[in-house]
Amino acid sequence: MSDDFSEKFFQYVDERKGLYIERLAEAVGIPSVSSELDTHLPDIVKMMTWTKEHADRLGAKTTLLPNPAATPERPLPPILLGEFHVDPAKKTVCVYGHLDVQPAKKEDGWDTDPFVLTEKDGKLYGRGSTDDKGPALSWLWVVEAHRELGVELPVNLKILYEGMEEFGSDGLFECIKEEAKEGKFLDDVDFFCISDNYWLGKTKPCLTYGLRGIAYFELQVQGCEQDLHSGVLGGTVHEAMTDVIKLMGTLVDSNGKILVKGVMDDVAPVTPEEEALYDNIEFDMEAYKEESKVSSVSNKLLHPDKKSLLMHRWRYPTLSLHGIEGAFSGPGAKTVIPSRVIGKFSLRLVPDQKAAQIESVVKEHVEAEFAKLGSPNKMSIKMSHGAKAWLSSPNHPNFQAASKATERVHGMPPDLTREGGSIPITSAIEDATGMNVLLLPIGACDDMAHSQNEKYNIPNLTNGIKVLGVYLHEVAKIEG
Amino acid sequence: MSDDFSEKFFQYVDERKGLYIERLAEAVGIPSVSSELDTHLPDIVKMMTWTKEHADRLGAKTTLLPNPAATPERPLPPILLGEFHVDPAKKTVCVYGHLDVQPAKKEDGWDTDPFVLTEKDGKLYGRGSTDDKGPALSWLWVVEAHRELGVELPVNLKILYEGMEEFGSDGLFECIKEEAKEGKFLDDVDFFCISDNYWLGKTKPCLTYGLRGIAYFELQVQGCEQDLHSGVLGGTVHEAMTDVIKLMGTLVDSNGKILVKGVMDDVAPVTPEEEALYDNIEFDMEAYKEESKVSSVSNKLLHPDKKSLLMHRWRYPTLSLHGIEGAFSGPGAKTVIPSRVIGKFSLRLVPDQKAAQIESVVKEHVEAEFAKLGSPNKMSIKMSHGAKAWLSSPNHPNFQAASKATERVHGMPPDLTREGGSIPITSAIEDATGMNVLLLPIGACDDMAHSQNEKYNIPNLTNGIKVLGVYLHEVAKIEG
Ligand SMILES: [Zn+2]
Ligand SMILES: [Zn+2]
Ligand SMILES: [Zn+2]
Ligand SMILES: [Zn+2]
Repeated sequence: MSDDFSEKFFQYVDERKGLYIERLAEAVGIPSVSSELDTHLPDIVKMMTWTKEHADRLGAKTTLLPNPAATPERPLPPILLGEFHVDPAKKTVCVYGHLDVQPAKKEDGWDTDPFVLTEKDGKLYGRGSTDDKGPALSWLWVVEAHRELGVELPVNLKILYEGMEEFGSDGLFECIKEEAKEGKFLDDVDFFCISDNYWLGKTKPCLTYGLRGIAYFELQVQGCEQDLHSGVLGGTVHEAMTDVIKLMGTLVDSNGKILVKGVMDDVAPVTPEEEALYDNIEFDMEAYKEESKVSSVSNKLLHPDKKSLLMHRWRYPTLSLHGIEGAFSGPGAKTVIPSRVIGKFSLRLVPDQKAAQIESVVKEHVEAEFAKLGSPNKMSIKMSHGAKAWLSSPNHPNFQAASKATERVHGMPPDLTREGGSIPITSAIEDATGMNVLLLPIGACDDMAHSQNEKYNIPNLTNGIKVLGVYLHEVAKIEG
Repeated sequence: MSDDFSEKFFQYVDERKGLYIERLAEAVGIPSVSSELDTHLPDIVKMMTWTKEHADRLGAKTTLLPNPAATPERPLPPILLGEFHVDPAKKTVCVYGHLDVQPAKKEDGWDTDPFVLTEKDGKLYGRGSTDDKGPALSWLWVVEAHRELGVELPVNLKILYEGMEEFGSDGLFECIKEEAKEGKFLDDVDFFCISDNYWLGKTKPCLTYGLRGIAYFELQVQGCEQDLHSGVLGGTVHEAMTDVIKLMGTLVDSNGKILVKGVMDDVAPVTPEEEALYDNIEFDMEAYKEESKVSSVSNKLLHPDKKSLLMHRWRYPTLSLHGIEGAFSGPGAKTVIPSRVIGKFSLRLVPDQKAAQIESVVKEHVEAEFAKLGSPNKMSIKMSHGAKAWLSSPNHPNFQAASKATERVHGMPPDLTREGGSIPITSAIEDATGMNVLLLPIGACDDMAHSQNEKYNIPNLTNGIKVLGVYLHEVAKIEG
């Protein structure tokens, strides 16, 4: 990328800020909530089509691939494949993004309507603004900039966008396996890039070379066939809720220590090399207290210093209790004995934990604890999904290209980070294609993905487009 | 009541079965859900007005009393007072009922639309059919029968109907205190009768002389100000959900044993007289397993024999865990760390437990257990409502009158029972007026009040009207 082009490109992007915001507002306005397919499947399809139309307009060859996991009983959104082909001699980069979003309701505590993008103090509030509509769509605006500036794309660019990420990416893994076959869509890809995670802080960019995996469990206890009145029947039946609460209480303690035997067995030991990586990272414990919203409550974190905190966030497993399905969950008082309740919890997995091993020790633990309760109720536990952690090398040329692009736009080299969250697609792509996957976040740490008041900073929006654009030029320079 | 009249009356009621069903269908069709005032206040008002119009048509002097607990910010339904005045020389009976219902949604597991009364195999399915629209309205049909048969009511009959029972009877207690004053609505009442509970079995009627009270608690823990993503932040913050689960797990064991120290302190000892009362009661443990819907699951009850089971249902306290507000409660998988969660649980109180003492020992227990957790999160616990148990004497003339009426209609004397549930109004009326309150259930044990597929048997509907009618004639004969 010539300095001349990059300057024109940066100026072009800055001038179109308003247009990018308008388009993001259109996208956020489509409530593509994948965990509520019953009501929102048409919205997800609309969002996929909206994106396809932009890609088509910009010269892509696109396909809305029928979801391979769909059945007549359970229709699913298609997967969008698109290709901006330039020259077979050029490198081919494939970018992944998702166009579905987490559920959100105003009454959950949003200050604004989650599906109306609302600008306030340079921030764009709305569900999906940062996760992942803002970043995912940025690739298209990079292509658009090249077209409008009359500059050829430096690489062949492929897009792989799905609409089920927030609900387990149904069908995507089959699709990737299929498309990785010889002669198919992913076969000629040289580098993958995903922009679906976040900076470690609010101002310094980073590249991410590691992610925790996940093992999500549903622990069900059934005591009777129908909800009962606690006044009329309380004291005479074995209550399912008591068992679920007792069992969930045996999993983790209030200081985050996992109480399930065998969970730590496969955790990779910390090497001196790994330990050294933590020393240079810019990380502000006080800012993190703000970010994690504990400052105004306890103002306490689980670990007292940067290194141990980051290690517990990135390279040690955790266990969180998410909620209970089937019990009373509304405001006020209801005197119900719920008949069948499902406790939801998940572990974040790290190298070298395997989901199958975790599934087996968790089951063993829960079954042993249930036996201790002496309850005649029916208990079952299943791992609803599992994915191992992912660990790459920050020295790979793909990462180096992104590092140069970041430095060009932000004037500083990115931190090299890992993440607590899971993006199961990362390992899946790597496993299926054998090619390097780069995680190139453009949102800030306090964007509140999955939470109330999710937002996307306007500077992150514009700088993100710039970084993604320059990255493609840096990738084009990679030898071999 | 002459045999001649009672025969005509019984025949009259049987002939109007279809009409009573039609009217109950109209009433059930009004979704008067008092826990959802935001959307259903107009429906409750409609239901109160519908009932007032029937009473007016039948010659009552009625008032829709503005709810004394209503505020401009929180409007509440009125209370319906009505009087069928016959003769100052006659006894005055006041009957209480409620016209609001529990929430119900088809997707909770109803086989039919809960707000469309649906007849199937001699049963009328619908929310409120048995609790309490069916029984409450029956008093009006008794009046109507007398009018149409040209027979004067044997007593002055007053009706006291509210629309907030299922959500704490807001305003009713103030109303009762006020109306019990000299010269006011309740001042000249000789006997009270409430038909808002259930038979012990499916076929044998009963009179109820005892009810448990209630202490309902909300246990809140806050860890941060906003829900967090368990991948991004898990392992770094003290999670509120962990604390709530741990605390709820310390309250009761899987065999229903309450683990809170001091809860049993004030429970009245069992006397030989009380113990003897249990021997004669007709109670089928196998049928109870069906009724409590455990037969197809564990087929096990908490206690092995009739006497200990009934004692734990009627005269020992219990503790039930109802649910958690603020955590994930939907289907599927959500990887949230809830910021603020509220555990809901309640105890059923028995003589001589006092709500204030229970509040104090529960708070003490929860605070001590919370201290053990070593969590920096913010915890608070409050008793959202409390009511002591109620115990009357089955030998009172009011009960004797109901016993004779029952025998006349059903050909057998009623069982004398207590109940696990609370009807706080019972004590409130007794305390305010000093007069006897009779609980005269007409629904069957398996009517599933508060649950899915609530129903009212057609024979209970017609026999109920007969019993209530004959009861008034028996009350009229009480001397003094
Ligand atoms: Zn995402
Ligand atoms: Zn997400
Ligand atoms: Zn009721
Ligand atoms: Zn009720």
